[in-house]
This record gives sequence, structure tokens and C-alpha cells, in this order.
Amino acid sequence: MWFVSDNTHPAASQILEAIGRANAGHAASYGADAVSHRAAAALRAVFEAPAAEVFLLPTGTAANALALGCLCPPWGSVYCHAGAHVNYDECGAPEFYTAGAKLIGLDGAHGRIGPETLAAALATGLGGSVHNVQPAALSLTNATEAGTLYDPAAVAQLAGQAHAAGLGVHMDGARFANAVAALGCTPAELSWKAGIDVLSLGATKDGCLAAEAVLFFDPARAASFGFRRKRAGQLFSKHRLFGAQIEAWLADGLWLELAARANARAAALGRGLAAIPGVILEHPVEANAVFARWPRALHRAALAGGAQYHLWDFDATLDGPDDEPLLARLVCGWATSEAEVEALLGLLRVGA
Amino acid sequence: MWFVSDNTHPAASQILEAIGRANAGHAASYGADAVSHRAAAALRAVFEAPAAEVFLLPTGTAANALALGCLCPPWGSVYCHAGAHVNYDECGAPEFYTAGAKLIGLDGAHGRIGPETLAAALATGLGGSVHNVQPAALSLTNATEAGTLYDPAAVAQLAGQAHAAGLGVHMDGARFANAVAALGCTPAELSWKAGIDVLSLGATKDGCLAAEAVLFFDPARAASFGFRRKRAGQLFSKHRLFGAQIEAWLADGLWLELAARANARAAALGRGLAAIPGVILEHPVEANAVFARWPRALHRAALAGGAQYHLWDFDATLDGPDDEPLLARLVCGWATSEAEVEALLGLLRVGA
Amino acid sequence: MWFVSDNTHPAASQILEAIGRANAGHAASYGADAVSHRAAAALRAVFEAPAAEVFLLPTGTAANALALGCLCPPWGSVYCHAGAHVNYDECGAPEFYTAGAKLIGLDGAHGRIGPETLAAALATGLGGSVHNVQPAALSLTNATEAGTLYDPAAVAQLAGQAHAAGLGVHMDGARFANAVAALGCTPAELSWKAGIDVLSLGATKDGCLAAEAVLFFDPARAASFGFRRKRAGQLFSKHRLFGAQIEAWLADGLWLELAARANARAAALGRGLAAIPGVILEHPVEANAVFARWPRALHRAALAGGAQYHLWDFDATLDGPDDEPLLARLVCGWATSEAEVEALLGLLRVGA
Amino acid sequence: MWFVSDNTHPAASQILEAIGRANAGHAASYGADAVSHRAAAALRAVFEAPAAEVFLLPTGTAANALALGCLCPPWGSVYCHAGAHVNYDECGAPEFYTAGAKLIGLDGAHGRIGPETLAAALATGLGGSVHNVQPAALSLTNATEAGTLYDPAAVAQLAGQAHAAGLGVHMDGARFANAVAALGCTPAELSWKAGIDVLSLGATKDGCLAAEAVLFFDPARAASFGFRRKRAGQLFSKHRLFGAQIEAWLADGLWLELAARANARAAALGRGLAAIPGVILEHPVEANAVFARWPRALHRAALAGGAQYHLWDFDATLDGPDDEPLLARLVCGWATSEAEVEALLGLLRVGA
Repeated sequence: MWFVSDNTHPAASQILEAIGRANAGHAASYGADAVSHRAAAALRAVFEAPAAEVFLLPTGTAANALALGCLCPPWGSVYCHAGAHVNYDECGAPEFYTAGAKLIGLDGAHGRIGPETLAAALATGLGGSVHNVQPAALSLTNATEAGTLYDPAAVAQLAGQAHAAGLGVHMDGARFANAVAALGCTPAELSWKAGIDVLSLGATKDGCLAAEAVLFFDPARAASFGFRRKRAGQLFSKHRLFGAQIEAWLADGLWLELAARANARAAALGRGLAAIPGVILEHPVEANAVFARWPRALHRAALAGGAQYHLWDFDATLDGPDDEPLLARLVCGWATSEAEVEALLGLLRVGA
Repeated sequence: MWFVSDNTHPAASQILEAIGRANAGHAASYGADAVSHRAAAALRAVFEAPAAEVFLLPTGTAANALALGCLCPPWGSVYCHAGAHVNYDECGAPEFYTAGAKLIGLDGAHGRIGPETLAAALATGLGGSVHNVQPAALSLTNATEAGTLYDPAAVAQLAGQAHAAGLGVHMDGARFANAVAALGCTPAELSWKAGIDVLSLGATKDGCLAAEAVLFFDPARAASFGFRRKRAGQLFSKHRLFGAQIEAWLADGLWLELAARANARAAALGRGLAAIPGVILEHPVEANAVFARWPRALHRAALAGGAQYHLWDFDATLDGPDDEPLLARLVCGWATSEAEVEALLGLLRVGA
Repeated sequence: MWFVSDNTHPAASQILEAIGRANAGHAASYGADAVSHRAAAALRAVFEAPAAEVFLLPTGTAANALALGCLCPPWGSVYCHAGAHVNYDECGAPEFYTAGAKLIGLDGAHGRIGPETLAAALATGLGGSVHNVQPAALSLTNATEAGTLYDPAAVAQLAGQAHAAGLGVHMDGARFANAVAALGCTPAELSWKAGIDVLSLGATKDGCLAAEAVLFFDPARAASFGFRRKRAGQLFSKHRLFGAQIEAWLADGLWLELAARANARAAALGRGLAAIPGVILEHPVEANAVFARWPRALHRAALAGGAQYHLWDFDATLDGPDDEPLLARLVCGWATSEAEVEALLGLLRVGA
Repeated sequence: MWFVSDNTHPAASQILEAIGRANAGHAASYGADAVSHRAAAALRAVFEAPAAEVFLLPTGTAANALALGCLCPPWGSVYCHAGAHVNYDECGAPEFYTAGAKLIGLDGAHGRIGPETLAAALATGLGGSVHNVQPAALSLTNATEAGTLYDPAAVAQLAGQAHAAGLGVHMDGARFANAVAALGCTPAELSWKAGIDVLSLGATKDGCLAAEAVLFFDPARAASFGFRRKRAGQLFSKHRLFGAQIEAWLADGLWLELAARANARAAALGRGLAAIPGVILEHPVEANAVFARWPRALHRAALAGGAQYHLWDFDATLDGPDDEPLLARLVCGWATSEAEVEALLGLLRVGA
């Protein structure tokens, strides 16, 4: 019953096998090898973006921060949700990679920024005044940190507002596969067709070991990326490690299959939880994460029964009144089984 | 006949197998997993340094730059060989990670800094004057970029000078395994016992896929490393990827066995080359790289015959007078075979 | 009728005369001259802080940013009021000087941070987690951007909370003189005795041409300041320019006399405004600035009548309904005359 | 007998008087005032560059570093003389303002870079390779740190080479006035007509208190300067302080008159020294500084006799053999008198 995070899941066997195949013999280093080229071509094909500039690297934090570095000067600002990974969970990586830009966290229910909120923020952006940081980028997370989604229309709305104000638009797609799988749209529809300029595409959480891609749909914005990546120590000599993972991940739709599996488990978990008295869903369950609140006594029972997940209220502990409701974050991954979901629900049904 | 670089070699089978084993099931992320802990313990044991702070990450550039960031403030300077990787081949990574420190490249025959050169540089360091960058670190590369070595006594000499001037001492050990294997000393003798404060230990070139370690023998210097690493996007969620590689690499002395193999090939290649009329060794062959000069016509023959290596004079080309001697860099790796060495020598003997 | 800003005021005659006197003959550069030493001694005496480290420089932005650079590492965070100058009006100077730290803007009525707000923020600071920026400093502005004050007890309360959480405490004292003059306390009571570790002391707005001081009451925190200042191009060769201004500014209490004059004008203006029908004070008038709201038609009349001040609602304009109330910021300086105050009030009384 | 530095000289009376005049009454802040506009117009007129973008700020270090920040990205390199102020005397300011670029110091006799040296450096610049910093700028100092000059033809030669390689060209003109006065050329001939893209124009050493200008002859390169300057805390609120100085400095050719006076004193000093047995000029005397070598005993006599200057050999002291020749740097400024020159020569003639 492991619902701690999707980054605790193993890599899928297809990924490991691909690494093994790619490992044989000598290969040109730093991305000049054949499998890396094939992976880039596959990304362009899947995104219907033949002119996209594509870069591979190991972590989502690096992908986000390098992408934002290309969109935002040191005296610029990046609008994002207050709870976005870039704002809260990266120890200031965007500030490091932008040489000191400012992230402006916006509030919004269920992890999403609303059009009015963005409009209000942009209206006070003070572009042109040397006394103020210059609005430079909008970063949207999809699926969001709350396990919810922006559909293509929602992305297009926000991206349109940002573009009208002269900003570039980035998408933190650490769970982009989950979003595409859930929405049933094409990758293109959820990215460049909706106005995304740069996408951080996460594969690590969705069955890879360590592989992310950054796609610049407007290649002009990518001019400095290669230098930034090398300078950051993010350019791998044995770059085929990335190429192998990404090629295998995209092949035959594996990436969407793995994501759909995680989404299905989360949906089942959400449905099951909603039916248990005393359990309240905090956010709509739209991708692979479930946020739900239930009494502390029930948490004690679940955790004692072997469930693993994070209490998500800040500094919540198991000590305290039995009936105080505490928030749980329950993340499903590609390897989450139906049995695990059932087992967790079982513990909660008994306890409730 | 592949002598382009040791970073073009595959990972050893033991490494891939270890990744496969470690991949099974769920594991805590960000380094809190069991195999990462075992790898750190193994590093401490191999280096006889039970108190060392140990960090794993994917690239040598990141290892060097993060280490130097801990040793050198933005207004500091790092003394290194002019041809050091940190100075020349990292697109300014140390400057990025130190927030703008200055690298001061020192000359020295065969890739090594001499004590007099270091003494002269330190004498003009201007420590204490706010008008000048403050001498903060010495970075030694071992094995050097010229395929030569500092033995423990040479390291101790230079580190002693640096310490006397208040500097911290870093070793870029991208090929540290080759150095230890060649010198027959212990890892401790070539590092902390000789005065190294922080070691970047390279495994990628020596049989791993992507794995480096940074060892702080003085744990107090490591206080900010964890934040710096995360902020750089260098902290892996599926950190067991590193743990598995490093554990397998150290197990049963595999790391030294692979390095010794590469060294032996280079030694044989060097001996063979020295015996060919018209071929002149540029540097002593002490580790896994050979630098030799021979006439252009012979290069044409060798490359046409299937040898792969870099011409190492800046902007040298195959067009030009037949008898002009051009420098070749020939790097052996763990997977270089005796037959490859023989084949290259054969081409050159025939041509000469 | 000039109420645009205190930074539009001329320098006081005593300041210019002191510059003239200090200019005669040769003087050691970079702060080693006699008048700079006397100014530093005077600052220590006025603040009853004989061990304080004192630095002089030209702008408040530089003073704040350099001070915060000494308190906060690149991966740290600075808590401040959302509307603080460091957060909003310095084009990211603190981010530049800290190499990318994060400013966390807190809400609070009348420009002040409340103890509960600070406590809530500190409670979620996540100190120790490498995933999050590390709480490093609290920056209080006194007098605030809203023209209000923290008295010594209020400072002590907030500084105590910050210290308990391991943060350093900075005060942006661009209008510190106004605060001291208004509160009737000693400079020490409003700074180090209340827990301030580093003070940016502004003189430019209070009768100087370009002179600010940074006082480190804990000298240990100042170790890197000299390097940071030089590296920023903020160390003047003809440093006597600063020394002369600061010495004259402190002499015979001139600094407090000028500030008291500005405060008195603001108080009179505030009283006068409060008595005019349709005019509403936005914030208590406690120092040298008045924020008040009145109908647009009255703004038109006042501005047409020669009053000069900023409309302070974001993007407010004179076009629109007559009776919509708009916010004015009215700043008094040392050179504001009673007649100017009376004239402005007269215009508004007639119009109202 | 004060030959320590030109930055120890007072400001000229015309400068102080102009500050006094400009100080009267209120003025718009941050450069929007009338005298600042007039100063900018005067700079454009004097340089025959009506389209130039002009910025005023207080220190040469800031002028240089901000200018280089506009020419060189973080992953770029700046070629300069090894002894250039930007490389040696600014505590890494260019590295700070460029967010970590690399300065590449070139050797060259008498403080000048030769065309062959520059050509050799550019030939190994590795533009386009992500592994290496990208050649971005050439910075020439005129007058040089050795008191010598580049004439317009020499500047044009080097700038032409740099432009051909895609670099921007900066001139550190901390003593540009001395250069123009000595060469008898126009300011335009020594700057944009010779290929300079950005000039740091120093006024502080030549009779001002604290005033420098940065001129972008190609306005497109200036796009980010305003943000960079504010973010650095280098934008003055009472900006008229700069406008007043620069306007008065340029008026009626005062700037060149003051510089010519300093140059004349240095020329006389150089001629006098050359005639003294045992005194050897180290560099040609072309501007306002003299570098000469004479025996230690003679230094003792001169310094005991009241002469003030720096021994310029690194760590030279008065203790040691009488007859060892030591290098003196003797800088003349606008306020150096003929009598001072004569007095110094008298001391040395007596001693020799």
C-alpha cells in the first residue's frame, strides 16, 4: 500500500531493457549518439512539432529551472501558482538558474490559476519601469500539484493572456503524461496548440529512472539552452542513458499506458474514498493523485495497517484529537496495483 | 580501434545488473533508500574516512562545480592548471556554481602544477584586500588532463602550500581510479592523507553509466552542499540509480580493476608508440591516456585504417604538409582491448 | 506644493558646506580618509554601539541588498512586508545581491507585519529540508511604506520571533530618522536594543545628497561586506564625499531636526485633511507621509491648482467618475514649508 | 608631493559649484531632472553621437561591470589585458555583474594588448562549443594601467579583429580624458569611430567627486542597462548630483583642460626622471602616470623627504639592499602642481 509518491516507483522493465541495449559498445558522447537522436525525433513526432528544439536531462527541477532561465531575465518575474513545485519545492532552483528572478505565486483553488487572478496580477506587472521586476513568464503545472488538470481550453485561455502581455509560457509537465492520458487529447493540443512555448516533460515519475525532456516549440527561445545545460553540469557524457529511456518510453504509447494505469488507480481510490463516511475529497481526482481528509483516528488505523502516504497539512502529526480531520496525499504510480487500492480502502472502511 | 574518450565506453555489466536489482519495488526517494546508504558507507570504508560527508550525483562537471562552490565564495579565486577541466571544459560551471568566482589558470609541464608556480601565484594573492578576489581554493586534477599523475607526496606538497595560505584543497578525480590503480597507493593516501579536503570521485568514465561522488573529508565544509545540490537540480528522486552503481563499482575492487585495465592498455600503447620511428610521446604515459605526435601522413593512414581518436593541437586538420607532426590524444577505457591497441600500433608501424 | 517624494528635496546647506570643506586637498581614497573615520565614529556614538561595523554607500537599494546578502544565503528566504521596498521597488536587487534568494512578502495592515502573520509564516518555513529555501532573515521597514511606525516594543516582538527561529533581523531604515524623531526614542532603542542585527540607515531622503550607512551591530555578520561592496562597484574612491555628509548630518542632531520638520508637516497635513469633508485618511499619519483618499474631482482641482503628488492606486487616472475616491500619497520632506501644506489644504477645502 | 593616485585629488571648484547650483529646489528623481538631461545631451554632442544611449553612475567599477554585463552572457568570456582593472582590481565585479562570465587576461608590453596576441587568443576561442565559454567581448583600457595609450589606429585594429570574431568592444576609459588630451584626437575618433561599442567614461579621477558615464554607441546593446543599473543599486534618486558634475565637467572643455594639466605634469616628471642617473623609466610616459625604477636607497630618501607614492613591485619594501632598483608608480592629477613635480625631482637628484 504505497502511496507516498510516484517517484518511489521502479522504472518499467521496458526502460531498463532499453538502457541495456543502448549500453552495448561505444557511442559518441554528449548527445551525439544514435539513440539520443532517435529519441529526439520521436519526441518531435509525438508532439507533431518537427521544428521543436529538444533537450534531455535527468531531473524535473533542472528541466524547469533551465527552461525558465531561457524565458526570464535576472530582472524578470515568473507567475506561477503559489503551491507550484518551481515556487515551493526546488530550493530556489529557478532563482539560481535565472540569476535571481522573482517568482510570483498566485492563489487558486485546487492548484489551478484562474483567468481573473492572472489578469489581476498582470495588470500590476509594471512592465517597463526600471524600479520593478519585469513580467517575463507564466509557468503552469499540469497535472497540478493538487492532482487536478488544465484542459487545452484552460491552457489556451491563460497562455493567451500571458502572450498578450508579452510573457513566454512554460508548462511544468512533470505529470504531463497523466494529464494527456486523462484528458484524451493529443500532446500537441495540450502544449503548443494551446500556447505553450516551452514544456518540461517528465518521464521519471512515469516509469523511467531519470529522464526528462525540455521541448522548445519556438526554437528561437532555445538559443542559450545548450550553454546553460552544460554550465549547470546537466549535460551527460553517456547521454545514451537518456536517449534509451525516452525512446522506449514513447514507443508504442508506453508513456500514456503507464500514466493511464496510475490515473485509473487514483480514480478508483477517489471513488472508494468518497463512499466512506467521514472521508472528504479535498480536490477533484483528475489525474494520479488523491487528496482526502479524514479523522486522525482513521489515519492511525490506516498507517498502522501498513498504508504508506504523507499527511499533507503542514506539520500535522498523529498526536491529537481522534476526530480532527487531517489531509492525506495519496499518489498512484504506474506500478500501483488494484490490490493496493483495495487494501487501503479496506483499512479505511473498517476504521470508519 | 576506439580511443576517442573513456566516456564513450559502455557501462560494465556489473553496473547494469546492480541497477536492475536496485530497481525492484518501491524505494524512498532523494537518497533515503537503502542502496544509497550502503554506497555511502562503502565509500567511507574504501577511503578509511568514517566521518566523511558523501554525496552522489551524475556528472563530473556538477561534482567539481558544487565542490568548489563549497570552498570558494563569489569574491574568491580558485587556482588550477590552465588546462584543467574546471577552467577550460565546463562552460564556466565553477563560475556559475560559485556565483562568480575567478579561476586562475597556472601553467605547468605535462598537466601538473609545480610547487614554485603555486608559490609564486599564492605570493601575489592579495588576501585581505577588498580590491582583489580572495584566494580560496586549490584544485588539482588527478590523473591530469595530460594523462600524468601527482603521487601522494606531490599532492601533499601542493596541498600543504595551499593550506598554509588558508586555501581549501579540491581534487578533480574524474580519473582518480586510474591514478590510484597506477600509483598502487590507497585511496586515502592519495586524498585526505595528502591534504585533500574535498574529492570529486569519478565513476562514469570508469565503467558506470552516470555516477560521481563528492567526498568531504572535513564534514564542516559540506554544510551547504545539500542545498546547493537540490537548487541545482542535481538531487535525483530515484537516487537508488546512483547508489546501485557506486555500490557495485566499489564491490570487490571492481573500480580499480577496470581502471587498471585501461591503464595497462595505455601503457602498452605508449610503449608501442615509442618504438615506432617518427612517433614522439608528448607526455609520460602514467594513467589511461597517451599523447603522441607523429607526421600528418601517418595520421591520415591511421584514421583511414579505422582508428578513432582526436587530433589534439588546436584546430589541427588533416590538410597540410605530410611530414608536419600533429598531436594525437588516445584514451583507453576499461573496455579497450589488447587487440585494439595492437591494431592501432599495426597501422602506425606500417605507415611509418 | 511638492509632495511627490522626499527624494526630490535638495540637500541641506550644512551638507553641501561639509562636502566643500572635505573636498580641500588630497585625501586617502576608499574610506581611509579622516572625515570618513570621523563619520563612522559619530555613527557608533549616536547608536551607542562602539563595536558596530559601519559602512557608507550611496543608495538605499544598495544598502538593503548588501545587508541582506550578508544575512541570507542564495538558498535562503527573507520575510518582509509584501509592499516593502526590497520586495517591490528595487527591480530584484536583493535577489541579485543574495545570488538568488527568495523574498516572501507578508500581508499586514498599514504597512506593518503583525506578530501572528510572522508566526504563521515562520511555522511553515521548513528549515532543514533541502527541498525548500531556508528561512534566513526578517526585514522590517521603519518608517513603513505606509508612513506608519513600529515602536521599539513592536520591533522587539518581531525580532524576538525571528531570532527564536534562527533568522537574522534587518531594518530598512530609509526613513529611520523620521521614525526616531516621531517616537522620541533613542536610535539604539529602535535598533539593536530591539533586536535589529543590521540597519540600513538612510540619509539621502533626510537632507543629504547621496549617503546611506549600513550598521552591523553584530560585527561578525559583517565579515563579507567589504568584498561584496567593492565587487558591486559601491566602494567610492573619493569616499570623503560620504564621510562629509554623514558627519554633518549627525552633528548637533541635524538629522533628527530635519526629520522632525518633515514629520511635523505631515502631521499638520494629516490633521487638515481629516477635517475636510470627503477626505479619508488611509493610514495613520505617524511619520512624514500621508495617504488619503478623496474624490477624483477634487484631485483634478488640486493638481490643476499646482499640487504635485502621486496617485497611489495602481493605474489610477484622472479620467473617470468625479466622485470615485482615489488614493493620494503625500510625502513631506525636510524642506516642505508650512505654506505648502496650507496651500494644498486650501485647494482641497475649496474644492470639497 | 602627492603622487599616490589621481583619485586622491579634490574635485575642481567648477564641479562643486555646479552641484551647489543644481541642488536648489525640488527636482524629479532617478534621472528625470533637467540637469541630467542636459548632461546627457552634452555627452552626445561632445562625442558626436546623437543616437548614443547614455547612463550616469558613480564609480568606474560599476560602469565597467554594468557595461560588460550588457556585452557578455554568463557563459561568455571577456578578453582584456592581464593587468586590466576589470581583471585585477575590482574584486570580481565583472563576474558578479555578468552572473559568472570568465575574464581572459592577455599579456602585452606596457599595458597594451598586441594584435598578434589578440589574434592568437581569438583563434582558440571555441565559439559554438557548449563545453567552452563563448568569446563575447574585448575590453581595452585607455589610457592603460601602465600609463600608455592606444591611438585611434591601434584601437581600430583591435576592435576590427574583435568584431570580425563576433565580439563586442568595450573601453574602460577611467582615464579617457587623459588619452584624448594626449592624443589630440576627438572623443569620437578614439571611441565609436575606432570601433568601440560601449565606453566607460571616467570623470571622478579628472576633477569630479563621483561621476562616470557609460555611452552605448550602438543603442541596441543598451536595452537591459536600465534594469541592471537599478537592480545593482546604482540608480541615484538625487540623480542631479551626476548631471551637475558631468555638465560642468564637459562645459568649455574643462574635462580636457584638467586632463591636459595632469598629462603635462607627468610628462615633465618623466623627462626629469629620465635625466637622473640611476633612474630608468619602465614604460613610455604617454598620459598622466609615470612608472620608473630607481635604487631602494633613493626611495628611502624620497619618501623620507615627503614624497608620497606607491612602490609598485608586488610586495616590495624599503627593507633590503640599497642598490636594488624598485618600481615606483607616480600618478599626476589635475591638481598636481609644477612645484610638486620639481620638489620630487629635487629629492631624487640630491639622492642620486
